[in-house]
Amino acid sequence: MTPALVAAGRNTKSAAEGKRLGPKGFQAAGIACGIKAIGGAKDLALIYSQTPARVAGLFTKNRVKAAPVLATRQRVRRGICQALIVNSGNANACTGKQGLKDTEATAEATAAALHLLPRDVLVASTGVIGQPLPMERLQQGIPSLVAKLSPLGFSDAAEAIMTTDTCPKIIAEKVEVDASKITILGMAKGAGMIHPRLATMLTFILTDARVETRVLTDLLREGARATFQRITIDGDTSTNDMLLLMANGEASRRTLHPHDGSFLRFKEALFRIMDYLALAIVRDGEGRTKVVKICVKGSKGIRSAEQLAFRIAHSPLVKTAFFGQDPNWGRIMAAMGNSGIAFDPHKVSIFFDDVVVVEHGISAVGVTEEQQRRVLEQGEFTVTIDLHAGSAQATILTTDLSIDYVKINASYHT
Amino acid sequence: MTPALVAAGRNTKSAAEGKRLGPKGFQAAGIACGIKAIGGAKDLALIYSQTPARVAGLFTKNRVKAAPVLATRQRVRRGICQALIVNSGNANACTGKQGLKDTEATAEATAAALHLLPRDVLVASTGVIGQPLPMERLQQGIPSLVAKLSPLGFSDAAEAIMTTDTCPKIIAEKVEVDASKITILGMAKGAGMIHPRLATMLTFILTDARVETRVLTDLLREGARATFQRITIDGDTSTNDMLLLMANGEASRRTLHPHDGSFLRFKEALFRIMDYLALAIVRDGEGRTKVVKICVKGSKGIRSAEQLAFRIAHSPLVKTAFFGQDPNWGRIMAAMGNSGIAFDPHKVSIFFDDVVVVEHGISAVGVTEEQQRRVLEQGEFTVTIDLHAGSAQATILTTDLSIDYVKINASYHT
Repeated sequence: MTPALVAAGRNTKSAAEGKRLGPKGFQAAGIACGIKAIGGAKDLALIYSQTPARVAGLFTKNRVKAAPVLATRQRVRRGICQALIVNSGNANACTGKQGLKDTEATAEATAAALHLLPRDVLVASTGVIGQPLPMERLQQGIPSLVAKLSPLGFSDAAEAIMTTDTCPKIIAEKVEVDASKITILGMAKGAGMIHPRLATMLTFILTDARVETRVLTDLLREGARATFQRITIDGDTSTNDMLLLMANGEASRRTLHPHDGSFLRFKEALFRIMDYLALAIVRDGEGRTKVVKICVKGSKGIRSAEQLAFRIAHSPLVKTAFFGQDPNWGRIMAAMGNSGIAFDPHKVSIFFDDVVVVEHGISAVGVTEEQQRRVLEQGEFTVTIDLHAGSAQATILTTDLSIDYVKINASYHT
Repeated sequence: MTPALVAAGRNTKSAAEGKRLGPKGFQAAGIACGIKAIGGAKDLALIYSQTPARVAGLFTKNRVKAAPVLATRQRVRRGICQALIVNSGNANACTGKQGLKDTEATAEATAAALHLLPRDVLVASTGVIGQPLPMERLQQGIPSLVAKLSPLGFSDAAEAIMTTDTCPKIIAEKVEVDASKITILGMAKGAGMIHPRLATMLTFILTDARVETRVLTDLLREGARATFQRITIDGDTSTNDMLLLMANGEASRRTLHPHDGSFLRFKEALFRIMDYLALAIVRDGEGRTKVVKICVKGSKGIRSAEQLAFRIAHSPLVKTAFFGQDPNWGRIMAAMGNSGIAFDPHKVSIFFDDVVVVEHGISAVGVTEEQQRRVLEQGEFTVTIDLHAGSAQATILTTDLSIDYVKINASYHT
């Protein structure tokens, strides 16, 4: 099974219904503690498992890593945790030794309030880089955050991890495994600085299934490869990205193994959640007016198909043409030519949805520009490039580059 | 001597004075023949040397090459030419066999009108990709273009090669070499899709010096490495880029050799011309409100310094922060972390002009955000990154990413 960046399946419940669907033994909360400049915006989230949970994580490959990434990556190696505290509005990145101290102090204060050990508390941050965490406000917020913990608190938590996101991204699904009802809940924050370098954005997935840490890690890697690593908004990778998967086993006494007949159902549900959240991140891309699926097929290899697709997705000229609903396929050809990938331009076909645009590397005959434009006028469409050179293919999701993207990012900091 | 992307020297005359300063034996013209949709905009240029000129060229490294690039690259290998015809408004790229035929027909019509052989006529095109050249209009234009040839026609030609450029880019310089007055004149069109992959944009440089083709080629490579290959606007490389250097020897009977004492003066003047045009291209970058010099120093090697500088210059988040005059240095650190280059974040210093922003990888103390912002409020400024790891450095020039960049490129095609 490979999730193909399609919307989640019928069994998957979206944000509004998320409240009722937390996995057993998990609680969450989200409050405003004053880190964000905008008064009253939620900026502190807590996820808590009543019993120790197995945990797996993927972290940003950016060489510049925020303090919480360093601390949490270290803790995740133990494979066990019981709580996760997340602040938005401040990335605690490029903050030196003080940043590491602040992350530890955050974990300690949370652990104290929950009667845990600090090593059982993971920390994540997202927001502006290079400013010290306002520790006083954060520490003052922790007691009320803990007091608000509730099995219905996931939507609040999903809201509190947002930065330039326009809506919370949360999803849950129930799946029957060995006569037990397993719940998987995921939440994500995305918006800008999205590019796959093993991990992207903040995404937290919780389940009451009982699964070994090693299996969780494998699932996370495989699922991310087909979902979070196939999306790009602006080609930048953040200093703070992390993807965590926690499983506390509260819904079942039996440990689920990959060779179990029912394992596949669990895996499929998990991958649908990841797929949904990846799509939700792209749909909420900063200033985006289009969601564009770019499919490169007929390639000699998957890697080269991916590289071509990403090169197209990152070209400012292609992205602005999408924004302008302009069937300017020459820019796609030019971007492909700059990918460093060998291909024969004279063999290339390009389609906008099922409207042929290019055949044998030149403008397709018998199709009007109007027909092409009509495809681009939709909010979501697919650009298919066929290299006619092999049988490998890769599909990625991206956005356009709009006036609003520039506006949002010209003024985010101040 | 290395031109350091500074404005041209005192002896260099700018556009307004260009009219009087064509090299001996060269003539030029520029007319409107109706290729551009906008009525009356010049779109056909001709450069003609009364005697055969030595020629050297650098061409786009894009795998998708326009027909005129293929044809002209072939002709330049002979090392001799006598005319160059350039159209704007249509790139004649991704136009298949018809595109190649159209390029040949353009050369033939020009050759016939000038009583030359087609192989002595070079062809260049720039504009929209994927549409057939309107050959009837172009061929009808050639006789009046030839009739307009004049030693004062260079400004018209520089205007006729423009696409989204807001002004013509032309420059000339006189230099005394062995008691002969040598003239060098250069013109360029740039604006968008600018990124160094050996050649960038259209640039034509003419001189009446007498120089061997091999020497011209070496000069072109060396000069481009320090100028045109150190500028980037949006990281895209066009299908049509070419840089040509023509020398007809009309100002001197003696061939200028690299071991001549006076060769250096010629080389310096040539490099100043290239430097001026590279800067002019950045200054006229699509929608740009800032020209930013990015200098990475303290690097172990020049290559890695360049890669870091280009990664910073291509980050949409960094570029939009420049547009917003926002001293958001965290985005610079994040972009560096994504460059694939090894460096120690804790050793990094960053300066905006001479205002320190980052020391030891964290926010510099004793400097206000207001002081930092004041630097970014200027039209042109320098961002210096010191890695404190070696003695190599690289400097490149780039622009911001503005709302107008998006507007221009969302609507260029239609």
